[in-house]
Amino acid sequence: MKLICSQTQLSTNLSLVSRAVPTRPTHPILANVLLVADVETQQVSLTAFDLSLGIKTSFSAEVIAPGAIALPAKLLNDIVSRLLDGEIELEETSVEPLGITIVSASGRYQVRGMEVEEFPELPIIEAGEAIYLPVEEFIEGLRSTLFATSSNELNQLLTGLHIIVEQETIEFAATDGHRLAMVETPNTVETPVASSRLEVTIPAKSLRELEKMLSLGNSNEPLAMQFDQGQVIFEWANRRLTSRVLEGQYPAYRQLIPRQFDRQVTIERKLLISSLERIAVMADQKQNIVKFSLDDTNQQISLSVETRDVGSGKEVISVSCSGEDLEFAFNIKYLMDGLKALPTNEIQMQVHTATSPIIFTPLGSLKMTYLIMPVQIRV
Amino acid sequence: MKLICSQTQLSTNLSLVSRAVPTRPTHPILANVLLVADVETQQVSLTAFDLSLGIKTSFSAEVIAPGAIALPAKLLNDIVSRLLDGEIELEETSVEPLGITIVSASGRYQVRGMEVEEFPELPIIEAGEAIYLPVEEFIEGLRSTLFATSSNELNQLLTGLHIIVEQETIEFAATDGHRLAMVETPNTVETPVASSRLEVTIPAKSLRELEKMLSLGNSNEPLAMQFDQGQVIFEWANRRLTSRVLEGQYPAYRQLIPRQFDRQVTIERKLLISSLERIAVMADQKQNIVKFSLDDTNQQISLSVETRDVGSGKEVISVSCSGEDLEFAFNIKYLMDGLKALPTNEIQMQVHTATSPIIFTPLGSLKMTYLIMPVQIRV
Repeated sequence: MKLICSQTQLSTNLSLVSRAVPTRPTHPILANVLLVADVETQQVSLTAFDLSLGIKTSFSAEVIAPGAIALPAKLLNDIVSRLLDGEIELEETSVEPLGITIVSASGRYQVRGMEVEEFPELPIIEAGEAIYLPVEEFIEGLRSTLFATSSNELNQLLTGLHIIVEQETIEFAATDGHRLAMVETPNTVETPVASSRLEVTIPAKSLRELEKMLSLGNSNEPLAMQFDQGQVIFEWANRRLTSRVLEGQYPAYRQLIPRQFDRQVTIERKLLISSLERIAVMADQKQNIVKFSLDDTNQQISLSVETRDVGSGKEVISVSCSGEDLEFAFNIKYLMDGLKALPTNEIQMQVHTATSPIIFTPLGSLKMTYLIMPVQIRV
Repeated sequence: MKLICSQTQLSTNLSLVSRAVPTRPTHPILANVLLVADVETQQVSLTAFDLSLGIKTSFSAEVIAPGAIALPAKLLNDIVSRLLDGEIELEETSVEPLGITIVSASGRYQVRGMEVEEFPELPIIEAGEAIYLPVEEFIEGLRSTLFATSSNELNQLLTGLHIIVEQETIEFAATDGHRLAMVETPNTVETPVASSRLEVTIPAKSLRELEKMLSLGNSNEPLAMQFDQGQVIFEWANRRLTSRVLEGQYPAYRQLIPRQFDRQVTIERKLLISSLERIAVMADQKQNIVKFSLDDTNQQISLSVETRDVGSGKEVISVSCSGEDLEFAFNIKYLMDGLKALPTNEIQMQVHTATSPIIFTPLGSLKMTYLIMPVQIRV
């Protein structure tokens, strides 16, 4: 194997696939990235696979002699990312042990490799057509919901994001039992879908990498998605991401959203965030609970925290609201997560009672719903 | 106590003094900052003291009623730093428990305080005149040497920086036993010093805070320094820093510097740093040791690392050198620290043998010497 490629290209692609390299590999080969140089297509491909998430990417290079080798991902990435911009040469060493020589303007490095045969193959899906999805809308859907997935590995299903693709819409939903983030985006790409509806729960970790992969590239092509028993494959702009799928019946989250609200509040999101940031300093002493008081007469809400030992704090925000006065309480962290993800500055808060779910929605933009359970407060 | 001040001023000064608040206070009062409002001078002063390092700072405010109170430093700093820019009002609460109310445009906070009587007083030095030092030169001296102090608490003296003030010069020196950083700056401020020579070792931690304090302000006045048994006091621009002094005979470091060198190399510092950063990836596998080879014929030095398991690396840099070829080795971390602190891009490396101290100096600027012991390599 011998090839000449650009340092920037190799480095960008290496750090992209490196995200599928496990931090604690169960087998030595999994700490490697598979590098394949194809002389016919003049393409170099890189693959990493932690047996759950797999990423493959390819880019153009001057391939002089074809070949394939598995190389230690972290070491290779650390070296290549520090090389100066410009052309670099990669050549398989002709003598034992197996490895490659990297030659750049300033120096040369030898890195030991492993046999390609040991490297596990990425899953492929043979049967079934791909469906195509709009990239920008897909990124927006991920960005506005992924944060609400659970990190508790005991309930695997909730560590995933639930995606429903229909002819006209794509729906994204995440819940960890305390809050729910839901987005419905238009499906602008027409696909001859065999089944009219596709429903799948994908690990949040895989989709975070997909989000990065999509944000990195610039291509007008739609995102191709293939889905089969246990596996999902995304392909876009010379890049492929495979992931296992989470099995099980995802919670019927739409039932959680109350039909009726007695109180509507329109709030400036940034104002609320900055007030919460200050009050959070006090709330830190008290399990992060902040009390909201709706004041219809003065058209304002006040946020307050009272601690036994260190003091108290109160912030007042002007809002436009309707409905009777009410007191309820939130965990600041959960509330903040949602507020930061909402895409507009004007947002609406809908409240029914102090113990029923409270809804936040952006005004006049994305169809997003952030639902959060209030915390019980003693009167 | 009642006062009105600017949020920016209070916040800046609070974070400055907070650096003298211990992370794990041995007594509850030490987690506090002492706030004193003086109605005559219309000044507010803040003091923090961890019994070794003390910082006191004052600033102008509209003091309506005088008073003093000790307040929890971290909480107060966290709240005040998040308040919006503008005027804020501080008032002592009239009812029990002891505390203050902070009123800003968006909200009000109550913070519990402690009695002032418990707060330890900063050391003062009554006898002896202050000497005056040039601020810019002092900052430069600190910046170029502090990094080389030891972090090993077992040898207290080496955790300090050694400063010698003479009529014409100020010398700064730091060594941890493996390397030495030394700077000599002109003493541009004329002082009627009683003794012609002042020599003191001050904890690096205190001087790092002094460096920040000096870098923050802008004042043309010289830095006042008072020194007595066990204590040193710096005063500058309404700010005071007190520190204990380290007792003991500081090593006779000048004796470490070889008188004679057989080899002189002029190197571009940034080129060497970037090569070292790359080779460090490989050296990370090998106790961070990098081998230098001086090549007089080709006027270059090569940096190389060879590991048993993962591979090897070699970088070549063009230099201008004189003297016979030689191989020697460094610990990359020690070398890097010094290279990053050297103030010019052109630097000189002076080498005698592979086992005697090697010297780095900036070309045509600050009188700085960075001495590092090479590492023994097996041939």
